[in-house]
Amino acid sequence: MDTPEDHPRYKSLLLRHRLEEGLRSGMTTPTGLVAHGRGEAFDYLLGEVTIPSALAATQVAAALLLLAERPVLSVNGNAAALVRDEMVELAKELACPIEINIFHESPERRRLIAAHFAAAGCAVFGEVPDAMLEGLSSARARVDSRGMFRADVVVVSLEDGDRTEALVRGGKRVIAIDLNPLSRTPQTADIAIVDNVDRAYPGLTRAVRELRTHSPSALQAMVDSYNKSATLAAAVAVIRAGVPAGGARE
Amino acid sequence: MDTPEDHPRYKSLLLRHRLEEGLRSGMTTPTGLVAHGRGEAFDYLLGEVTIPSALAATQVAAALLLLAERPVLSVNGNAAALVRDEMVELAKELACPIEINIFHESPERRRLIAAHFAAAGCAVFGEVPDAMLEGLSSARARVDSRGMFRADVVVVSLEDGDRTEALVRGGKRVIAIDLNPLSRTPQTADIAIVDNVDRAYPGLTRAVRELRTHSPSALQAMVDSYNKSATLAAAVAVIRAGVPAGGARE
Repeated sequence: MDTPEDHPRYKSLLLRHRLEEGLRSGMTTPTGLVAHGRGEAFDYLLGEVTIPSALAATQVAAALLLLAERPVLSVNGNAAALVRDEMVELAKELACPIEINIFHESPERRRLIAAHFAAAGCAVFGEVPDAMLEGLSSARARVDSRGMFRADVVVVSLEDGDRTEALVRGGKRVIAIDLNPLSRTPQTADIAIVDNVDRAYPGLTRAVRELRTHSPSALQAMVDSYNKSATLAAAVAVIRAGVPAGGARE
Repeated sequence: MDTPEDHPRYKSLLLRHRLEEGLRSGMTTPTGLVAHGRGEAFDYLLGEVTIPSALAATQVAAALLLLAERPVLSVNGNAAALVRDEMVELAKELACPIEINIFHESPERRRLIAAHFAAAGCAVFGEVPDAMLEGLSSARARVDSRGMFRADVVVVSLEDGDRTEALVRGGKRVIAIDLNPLSRTPQTADIAIVDNVDRAYPGLTRAVRELRTHSPSALQAMVDSYNKSATLAAAVAVIRAGVPAGGARE
């Protein structure tokens, strides 16, 4: 990408560029690009920063991940294209697997995503799923018996509502990274981080490092005191405030 | 597309399908898909309906088009893929040209868009531009001497702010169809229609038919009484109201 790093839209253009590369390689889909655009609009309304309530939810999510016995990071085509390195760093910090989980089933896209992570020295689960989540149509239910199937805590980003619901119904604690506080995914998840993935994953990694020395009971107290409705209401309030009556924003 | 017409998201999925087809043919770009996603988010916040203030702006825009001596409809890759037939109908009603105007210069995309309109029996300008708008970098300034160059009123949809500004500075009256009332395009245009293109073009055609029998002085009075700030403030108010504190929307 030729855009200079001091361009005001550098980060936004860089993310878009990564998705376009993903589309070229076949890792991401046209629908994924449209979904990214929807996210961009919500990020624009959030001011393209990590808002305080998202930072707080990130801390709680990090505590839950440190308490987890078998955490898994779920990755789809968009997330692979956008934040591979950031996800690998969090997975290393947690010594946990990353598992491929795509909306439109495609063995070829699973293979491309696995290869993209392999190129960064990271093996992922889910290239050839061998188990099923209950309560989802078969194409969407496929998981890895070593990963998502037996996980107790799952991080999903840019995920759809049905799959999030199926994970929650399956008894897993779900941490969702999603820019639209009104959508079903954060409404359904246990912990909602209303933030862009390129800020949320590094934030989670930092929080895991910071909280690692704390006792399980202190971490559990953080998790127990979490109020997801407050997270979502705070994000909605920021979005409302970000839509000034008649004013220009661009 | 296999989605049944009574599916709640039928129209939204149909538009996305048209863009994906456009991407496959080379008429639209990956960036165009991301831009469409941003529009989808704003349309979602508007409730995916033509709001009263947009209907009012559409009536004023129709009056201005009926008063215009040399109106032109500007079309880019997204608009060509999404609303070709709707644009052709408006152009026939006004007996005015449609002109290709794309953000990332590409003779091949100009050719594909022209062929897409030719397939619907409509010749368009701008396949090979032969004139320049002032105040824009050369690749973005290219227009047709028979069309945009000499137009007095231009309808743009899904247009960028720089180009809209250059048209306005060039003395043209600009009608902008744009879902984000905060962005520079509707802020810069003379008349802003905050509505999805698939509702806005048929709405314009209906309004032109309804207003055709009115006197020029009555139409001019409509145009003179138009208040764009009120249009934009009303759209912002609807978006704010569409973001309920903590409530689910999906």
